[in-house]
Amino acid sequence: MSLSVDKTSTGREYKVKDMAQADFGRLEIDLAEVEMPGLLSCRTEYGPSQPLKGARITGSLHMTIQTAVLMETLTALGAEVRWCSCNIFSTQDHAAAAMARDSAAVFAWKGETLQEYWWCTERSLDWGPDGGPDLIVDDGGDVTLLIHEGFKAEEVFEKSGTLPDPSSSTNSEFQIVLTIIRDGLKTDPKRYHRMKERLVGVSEETTTGVKRLYQMQANGTLLFPAINVNDSVTKSKFDNLYGCRHSLPDGLMRATDVMIAGKVAVVCGYGDVGKGCAFALKQGGARVIVTEIDPICALQALMEGFQVLTLNDIVSEADIFVTTTGNKDIIMVSDMKKMKNNAIVSNIGHFDNEIDITGLETYPGVKRITIKPQTDRWVFPETNSGIIVLAEGRLMNLGCATGHPSFVMSCSFTNQVIAQLELWKEKSSGKYEKKVYVLPKHLDEKVAALHLGKLGAKLTKLTKDQADYISVPIEGPYKPAHYRY
Amino acid sequence: MSLSVDKTSTGREYKVKDMAQADFGRLEIDLAEVEMPGLLSCRTEYGPSQPLKGARITGSLHMTIQTAVLMETLTALGAEVRWCSCNIFSTQDHAAAAMARDSAAVFAWKGETLQEYWWCTERSLDWGPDGGPDLIVDDGGDVTLLIHEGFKAEEVFEKSGTLPDPSSSTNSEFQIVLTIIRDGLKTDPKRYHRMKERLVGVSEETTTGVKRLYQMQANGTLLFPAINVNDSVTKSKFDNLYGCRHSLPDGLMRATDVMIAGKVAVVCGYGDVGKGCAFALKQGGARVIVTEIDPICALQALMEGFQVLTLNDIVSEADIFVTTTGNKDIIMVSDMKKMKNNAIVSNIGHFDNEIDITGLETYPGVKRITIKPQTDRWVFPETNSGIIVLAEGRLMNLGCATGHPSFVMSCSFTNQVIAQLELWKEKSSGKYEKKVYVLPKHLDEKVAALHLGKLGAKLTKLTKDQADYISVPIEGPYKPAHYRY
Amino acid sequence: MSLSVDKTSTGREYKVKDMAQADFGRLEIDLAEVEMPGLLSCRTEYGPSQPLKGARITGSLHMTIQTAVLMETLTALGAEVRWCSCNIFSTQDHAAAAMARDSAAVFAWKGETLQEYWWCTERSLDWGPDGGPDLIVDDGGDVTLLIHEGFKAEEVFEKSGTLPDPSSSTNSEFQIVLTIIRDGLKTDPKRYHRMKERLVGVSEETTTGVKRLYQMQANGTLLFPAINVNDSVTKSKFDNLYGCRHSLPDGLMRATDVMIAGKVAVVCGYGDVGKGCAFALKQGGARVIVTEIDPICALQALMEGFQVLTLNDIVSEADIFVTTTGNKDIIMVSDMKKMKNNAIVSNIGHFDNEIDITGLETYPGVKRITIKPQTDRWVFPETNSGIIVLAEGRLMNLGCATGHPSFVMSCSFTNQVIAQLELWKEKSSGKYEKKVYVLPKHLDEKVAALHLGKLGAKLTKLTKDQADYISVPIEGPYKPAHYRY
Amino acid sequence: MSLSVDKTSTGREYKVKDMAQADFGRLEIDLAEVEMPGLLSCRTEYGPSQPLKGARITGSLHMTIQTAVLMETLTALGAEVRWCSCNIFSTQDHAAAAMARDSAAVFAWKGETLQEYWWCTERSLDWGPDGGPDLIVDDGGDVTLLIHEGFKAEEVFEKSGTLPDPSSSTNSEFQIVLTIIRDGLKTDPKRYHRMKERLVGVSEETTTGVKRLYQMQANGTLLFPAINVNDSVTKSKFDNLYGCRHSLPDGLMRATDVMIAGKVAVVCGYGDVGKGCAFALKQGGARVIVTEIDPICALQALMEGFQVLTLNDIVSEADIFVTTTGNKDIIMVSDMKKMKNNAIVSNIGHFDNEIDITGLETYPGVKRITIKPQTDRWVFPETNSGIIVLAEGRLMNLGCATGHPSFVMSCSFTNQVIAQLELWKEKSSGKYEKKVYVLPKHLDEKVAALHLGKLGAKLTKLTKDQADYISVPIEGPYKPAHYRY
Repeated sequence: MSLSVDKTSTGREYKVKDMAQADFGRLEIDLAEVEMPGLLSCRTEYGPSQPLKGARITGSLHMTIQTAVLMETLTALGAEVRWCSCNIFSTQDHAAAAMARDSAAVFAWKGETLQEYWWCTERSLDWGPDGGPDLIVDDGGDVTLLIHEGFKAEEVFEKSGTLPDPSSSTNSEFQIVLTIIRDGLKTDPKRYHRMKERLVGVSEETTTGVKRLYQMQANGTLLFPAINVNDSVTKSKFDNLYGCRHSLPDGLMRATDVMIAGKVAVVCGYGDVGKGCAFALKQGGARVIVTEIDPICALQALMEGFQVLTLNDIVSEADIFVTTTGNKDIIMVSDMKKMKNNAIVSNIGHFDNEIDITGLETYPGVKRITIKPQTDRWVFPETNSGIIVLAEGRLMNLGCATGHPSFVMSCSFTNQVIAQLELWKEKSSGKYEKKVYVLPKHLDEKVAALHLGKLGAKLTKLTKDQADYISVPIEGPYKPAHYRY
Repeated sequence: MSLSVDKTSTGREYKVKDMAQADFGRLEIDLAEVEMPGLLSCRTEYGPSQPLKGARITGSLHMTIQTAVLMETLTALGAEVRWCSCNIFSTQDHAAAAMARDSAAVFAWKGETLQEYWWCTERSLDWGPDGGPDLIVDDGGDVTLLIHEGFKAEEVFEKSGTLPDPSSSTNSEFQIVLTIIRDGLKTDPKRYHRMKERLVGVSEETTTGVKRLYQMQANGTLLFPAINVNDSVTKSKFDNLYGCRHSLPDGLMRATDVMIAGKVAVVCGYGDVGKGCAFALKQGGARVIVTEIDPICALQALMEGFQVLTLNDIVSEADIFVTTTGNKDIIMVSDMKKMKNNAIVSNIGHFDNEIDITGLETYPGVKRITIKPQTDRWVFPETNSGIIVLAEGRLMNLGCATGHPSFVMSCSFTNQVIAQLELWKEKSSGKYEKKVYVLPKHLDEKVAALHLGKLGAKLTKLTKDQADYISVPIEGPYKPAHYRY
Repeated sequence: MSLSVDKTSTGREYKVKDMAQADFGRLEIDLAEVEMPGLLSCRTEYGPSQPLKGARITGSLHMTIQTAVLMETLTALGAEVRWCSCNIFSTQDHAAAAMARDSAAVFAWKGETLQEYWWCTERSLDWGPDGGPDLIVDDGGDVTLLIHEGFKAEEVFEKSGTLPDPSSSTNSEFQIVLTIIRDGLKTDPKRYHRMKERLVGVSEETTTGVKRLYQMQANGTLLFPAINVNDSVTKSKFDNLYGCRHSLPDGLMRATDVMIAGKVAVVCGYGDVGKGCAFALKQGGARVIVTEIDPICALQALMEGFQVLTLNDIVSEADIFVTTTGNKDIIMVSDMKKMKNNAIVSNIGHFDNEIDITGLETYPGVKRITIKPQTDRWVFPETNSGIIVLAEGRLMNLGCATGHPSFVMSCSFTNQVIAQLELWKEKSSGKYEKKVYVLPKHLDEKVAALHLGKLGAKLTKLTKDQADYISVPIEGPYKPAHYRY
Repeated sequence: MSLSVDKTSTGREYKVKDMAQADFGRLEIDLAEVEMPGLLSCRTEYGPSQPLKGARITGSLHMTIQTAVLMETLTALGAEVRWCSCNIFSTQDHAAAAMARDSAAVFAWKGETLQEYWWCTERSLDWGPDGGPDLIVDDGGDVTLLIHEGFKAEEVFEKSGTLPDPSSSTNSEFQIVLTIIRDGLKTDPKRYHRMKERLVGVSEETTTGVKRLYQMQANGTLLFPAINVNDSVTKSKFDNLYGCRHSLPDGLMRATDVMIAGKVAVVCGYGDVGKGCAFALKQGGARVIVTEIDPICALQALMEGFQVLTLNDIVSEADIFVTTTGNKDIIMVSDMKKMKNNAIVSNIGHFDNEIDITGLETYPGVKRITIKPQTDRWVFPETNSGIIVLAEGRLMNLGCATGHPSFVMSCSFTNQVIAQLELWKEKSSGKYEKKVYVLPKHLDEKVAALHLGKLGAKLTKLTKDQADYISVPIEGPYKPAHYRY
C-alpha cells in the first residue's frame, strides 16, 4: 500500500485496507459488545462523568473487533484515540474500517510489511505539533520501545550530533526502527523529549511487553509510569490460558483443516499460554508432549498426563508444533529439516523469533509454496519433504484466525480501561513514579465480577462472622497478594 | 448464476463458481492427500489393475477438498465421474474448480438456490443419451430419491398419461423435484427407466440416506442394490463422532467467534453426531445440556456428566443450540422467540428441517440481518432481541466451516471406494439383490488398519494359541457382528 | 475353612466367613438399594404378582452388596435362591452373611482356595434329591460349565463306564472340576442329566461367559436356552465401561495408594472394559498407552489421544499395567522381569490367565512379599527389583476394592431380573430353543428408563408426526438392532 | 484408650493403637519410599553431613505412611523426633506403630477423642525438663497455638495470678486446650516461656495454619520465626490440587462405594483444594456445581464449565457435597435437612467447622446410624430421610481413605525438610525474625526438579543467549516472584 494518510469527511486521519468493510465491521462489533460485559459496564458506570475527557490515547494493540469495543469504550469515556496494530498480521480489516470511519484515527491492515508496520506505529504517535499522546495502551511494548529509543537517540544527538546508524544492528526490524528515528531526528530533534514530557503513562497488555518494562525499571531507564495489565489475574490467568485454549485450535483449523485427533503435538513452553494450548490439543484428541526449562511447570505438565521431553527427542515424530515460550530460537531450521512431511510449525508467543524463519528463508534451495495467506509450505531440496508454517512464525491465532474471543478479551480490556482511568486520574498526584505497577486486587476482583452475570453465575456472600473468621472484608478483596489462583 | 453448462478444453462439462480457484484447490488437495492414507492406499493397491474401468459414477456428496481426493481415487481406479454437492452451502469452490479442470464433470458451488441445487443434481445424472450412471455415490439420498421419484412418475404417466403435479406437495423443495421430473417427462418419458436398467447400485454415506433406503427396502420399492456405508464402524463411529467433535467448534468459531467456555450449550440428540458435539462443547469449557427421546442414549449422556432436560426447560437460559437428531421440528420459531439475545441456533444433522427456518422467515415483522454469508441475526419485533442462525439451518460445519477434516473422511471414503469396487465387481454375479447391505467386518477392519500407520500405531499380533482361545482367525475379523465398539 | 455346610435356625444351608457381619451387610444393602432404582422398580412392578413363584434359582456371581440387592429382588418376586461367588476374591463377607441370615442359601467367602471355590459352586447346585435349579444366573459360565462337563462325563460313563481322569488336564483348576465330577459320578451317575431335564435356562452376565455360550451353540452342545445379558446395551456399554472407569482406580488406590497422576499406564485391550480403564487413568493424570489386536479399536484409542504400542515397546518404561482383553497370556513372566521396580500389574478381565501368575510363582528364586491381602510384591532374584501384583491376577476391582458401584450394577442386574422373568414365563412355551438370545431392545430401553429419574433427567417425547417421520413408535424402541450407541 | 505413655525397649516413649502392625507399616513405608524421590534425594544429599544433628523436632502432622517417610528423612539427617497427628481420624495405625518401634516418639491413633488428641499434642512437646523442641513441623497450627496460648496464660498468671477459665469459651475444643494449660500452669508456670526461648522456628504445612501465622504476625504476637511451606508452589499447587484430585474420590469410594458418574456434586470453594475436587468429580462423570465468594475463582470455575450457584439454589437437588473453603459454617443443619435422602456430606478443608456437626448432633430427634467407622447416616425425624456424613465432618480423605498419595506428598514434605534445614542452619544468624517467610524460588524449583526423573521427564536447557534474552540465570530461578503458575 502507498504510505499516505487518508482523511475522513470530518478530517480524522486513517490508513486502512478497505473502508467499504466498515458496515461489516460494525455488525461484528455489535455482536461482540454483547459478549463484552466488562467493557459495556464501564461505559454505563463511567460514561456519564467522562473521566477521560481531554486524554489523548495512542494504542498499539491488535486491531480486531474486540479491540474496537475497547477503543469505543475509551472514546465513550471521553478520550480521543489513535491506533495501530502490534502485529503485521493481526488486523481485521473490517474492524479497522469501522473504527476509522466512526471512532478513531486508525493505521492498520492485515499483512503489513515491517516497513509499513513501523510507519503505522509512528503515525499513531503523531498527535500534531504539540507533542504526543497523554496515555499509551501497548501490547508487546513497541510504542514504548520507539519512544524510549527515540528519546535515547535524541540524547546522543544533542550531546554528540551523532545520528543512529541502522547498520549498527543485525536485526532487520530494529534497523527499520533506527531509520525512522534517524529520519525524524533530522527534522525534529526534540520530538520524543516532548512526548515524554506529556506522557502520563502506559498500560501494557502482555507478558513480553511487561518483561521489557521490568528490565527498564531495573536499569533505571523507564521514562514514565507503567501499569502491568498482564499480571492482573483476570488477564494472565484468563486471556492467556482460556483465550489460547480457544484460539489455538481455531487457528490450526482455519489455516490447515488438519484433524487434531490422533496427532502428536509438541507444545514448547508450559506457562499460561502453553497450558491453554496443551489442553486444547489434548481435548481435541491429540497426544501432547511438552518441552520446558522450568522444573515446576514441567511437573505441572506431568501431573496432567503430558509427557515432558526435549524438542530433539520428538522432533521427527510429531505432527504439530506450537511455541509459547516468550523466548527466542525455540525451533530452528535444523529442527525443521528433521520433521515429518507436512508437520505444522506455529507460534503463539508474542514475537516471531521463537521460530527460525530467517534460517528457513535463507536455507539453500528451500522452496516456499503459499497455500493461502498465512499458510505456507516450505519444501527442503534434499528430501522434497515439506513443513507447513503458519503466519510466517507470528502469532498464529491472530494471523490465521481472529485471536481470542470477545468474552475473555473483555476481561483483559476492562483491566486496560481501569488502568487508563487510574493513570489519568492520578496524572498530577504523584501517586505513580517511573515504575511498573499492577492493579490492586479489588479492581481485579471487580473485573471478574462484571463478567459473572452474563454467564448466569451467583456468588455466595460472606456473613460478617465468616468474614471475621478468615479476616477479610465482606466485600473483598478475598485473597492475599501472593495467592496464585 | 445462469444455469448453462460450461465445457473444458477437452470437452468435459461443468458448472462451478470460479475456475481461477483451481490452483488453490489443487494445493489444498495435495495437503489433504497426506492426511488420507486410506484413499492413497487404495490408489496404490488397486490403481494398476483399473478395477473401475468402464464404470460411470455419479456422486452427490459435499463437493469439498476431501471429496476431491475421493473422486480422484475413483478416477485413478478407472472410473469416469460426474458430481454434484448434496447441500447448497457445502461446496468449497476451489475444490470444485480443481476437480472440474482436472478430473470430473462437476456441477456445484457454495450458496446454490434450491432450484440450482436440483439442476446440478440432474446434471450429474446426465451421462448422455444412452442412460445414466452405472454407480451412485450418494449422501442423504437425493440422487436416489430423484431416480425413484422419476421412475414412479414415468410408471404413472405410462399408465394414465398423468404428469406429476408440483402443487400437490406443500413442501417447496419437493415441488422443485416434481417440476424437474414433469418437465423431463414431456421430452423423454423413459429416462429414469433406462437409468434404472443400467444402474448397478448405490453406496450411501449417511444416517439419513440409509434410513430412506431401509424404508424403501421395507416397502419393496428399492430399484437397485444399496450398500450402507454409514454403518461401517469406521464410518459412523469415526466420521459422525470424531468428525463432528472437530468440525462443530470450527463452524461456531468461524461463524461467530463466540467464546465457548462458560456458555450453556444445548445439544439436541445424543447419537454419534450428538456425542461428538457434546464432547466438543464440554471440552471447550461449556456447560452442556442434552435433549433425548431414547432412554439409553439419555443414560449415556448422564454417565458423562451431561444434564438431560427437555428443550423447553432450558430454552431461555442457553447460549448455544445444536440439533443433531435426524428428525424434524426440533427447534421451532416459538422456541426461538424465548431465547436469550444473540443465542446461536445451528444444525449439524443432514437436513435443515430440524430448525423451523420457514417459521422464522414467515414470522410477522421479523428482521434478518446478514452478518456475513451463513451467519444471520434474526430480530423479533416484540422484543428487539435477536438470535443468530448459522447456515440457514443447514449443516453448520459445512456451511460455516469446511466440514470434517481429511483424516476422518479418509476412513469414510475408503469405505465408499470399497463399496463401489464391490458393487462393480459383482455387477453380474447376482450377489446383491435390491436390498441394503453393509460391508463385511474384515473390510471395516481393513479400513481402520490403513489409517494406523500415519498415526504411528503398532498393533499387537495374536499368537495361534490366543486366537484359538478366543475363536477368531489370527488375521481377524476379531469381533462378532453385534459388537458395538 | 472346613468344608461343611452350616444351617440357619430355619434350616437354610450356608457357608460364609462370619455371620456376625450380617448387620453391617444389611446397613450397606440398605444404602445400595437407594442407588439401584431398576431393581427396586422391579420389586414394585412385579412383586405383587409373584411371577417367579416356584422357581429355584442358582446364582454364581460375585457375592457383593449389589448382588445381594439382586438376590432379594429375585426372592421378592417369589423365587428361592442358592448362591456362590464366581471369583475366589470377590465376595464381600458382610454381604454374604446378610444374605445367608436373611434371604438365601449362600456359599461364598473372600479368599477361597480353588478347591473351596468349586465346592461352593457344587453346593449352589444342590437343591436336594429331586434335581437341580430351574434357572441359573451365571457370570463367566462356571456353573454352566460344571453342568455341561458333568453331563458329558455321565454320557461317557454310561456308554463305557469310564470315569473322568483329572490328570488328563494340565490345567490345575480344571483338574479340580473333573475330580468333583468323578467323585459325584460314583454315587449318582445321573445327577447332571436330571439337572438338565429340569433346567429352564441360564442368563449369563459377562463377555467371557457369553463367548463360551456362543461356542457351545456353534458346536451344538448347548443343553438349555441362554439369555446373553452381557450384550444388552444397558449392560455392556454401562457396567463394562462406566463400572470399570469407577472401580479400576478404586482398586488401584485401595491396594497401593499409588498416585496415578504423572504415571505411565498400559491398558491391554480397548474393548468396553479397556475403554473404561483407559479413561479412568487418563482422567487421573496418567499418560496411557493402549495395546490392541483389532485395528478398529486401535483407531478409536488413537482418536482419544492414546498411544497404541505393543507391550514390548513399553514394558520397561510403564508404571501401571492393566489387562482387559478376555484373552490369555497377555503379560508373561518374561515381561514382568523387564518392568521397573514396583511396577503394578493387574487384571480386570474375567479370568486370571491374562497374567502369567503360574510363570511368576514358579520363577526360580522369586520372592513373594505380601504387603496386605491381594497386594503382593514379587522380587526377582537377579535384579532384586520387584513388581506389585494385585489380587493374584484376578479381577482387581473386586479383589482389591468392592467392584462396580451400585448404580451401574442396577442396570446390569435389572437385565438379569428381566431375563429370569422371561425364561420362567416362557418355560413351557417353546419360545426359547437351546440357543443364545439377547433381550429385545424395548426391554433394554426400559432398563435405561428405570434409571433416569434417580439422576433427575427428563426425556423428550416424540410427536406423532416426528415418530412417523423417522418411522419409530412413539414409545420406542427407537433404534435399529445394529445401532452401536 | 488409657492415657498413659508406653516405652520401647530402648526407652523411647510412645502411645499407638497396636504395635503389632509395625511390620505392615514398614512394608508400606518401603513402597512409599519408591514414590517419594524428593525425600530420598534429601537423605542422599544431606544424610552424610548430618545437618540436623542435635535438633529436637516436634511434629503435628497426619501420622500416615507418607509422614513416616518424612520423619525418617528428618532422623536420617540427624534430628530427634516426637510426633502427634493433627487430626483425630488421620492416623494410619500401622504407620504409627512402625515409627514408634523404629524411629520416633509417636503419640497418635486413628479415632482419638478430642481429649486424647490434645493429650497427644502435649506429649509431643514434652522433651523433658530442659524445655521443648528446637523446631516444629506443624499442620494447621495446633502445636503453635498451644504454645502461644500457653505463653499468654503464663503472662497473665504471672501478672495477676489468674488461671485460664475453660468455661470462658463456648468452643468445646478450646475448653480442652484451656484446661490443659490451666492444669499445667499449676505445676510449672514457666513451661511455655522456656519452650519459646529454645524454639528456633516452625514450618507450617497448610493454608489454615498459615492464615493463623499471618494474623499473629500482623498482631505482633508471633513468638518465633515461621516458614510458610504451604505457599511453596510445589506445595499448594501440587498437594492441594493434585492431591485432592486423587484423594477425594478415594475417600468417597471407600466410605460409600457410591457411583460418581451421573451424580450432581456441589463443591463449596474453588481454591486449589476445590479445584482438585471439582475436577475429580467432573472426571468421574458427575455434574459439578461450585459455590464461591470470590468472583475471580468463580469466573475460573465457569471457564471450566462448572455452574456457579449458591448452596441454597442446589441444596435439595445435589447428591454429593464437599466443603473446601477454610471458612466455617458452610453447610448448616438447616441445609442438611433440605437434602435428598442419602445425600453425602463431606469436608476436605482443614477444620471440621465447615460442616455444622454440632447442629446435627443436637437436632431434636435426629438418629445416627453408623454404617462403618467414619461413615454415618443421620436420619431426621420429620422426614425419615437421612444424609450420610463422612469422617464426622473432618478431612474425609484422611478419615475415610489414606490421604494424598506418596508422590505428591514427597513434594510437600521435601519443602518441609528444606524449611527445617534452613531454620536450623540460621538458628543463630538472625536471618529470620519473628515473621512468616516463604522459601526462595530456587528451592521451590529444586523440589520440583527432584521429582522429574521418577516420571521420566527431560528438561530443556537454556542456551546462554536465550537466558540473557529473557534475563534469567541458565540454572534458574526462571520466574518472577509474582508468577502464578
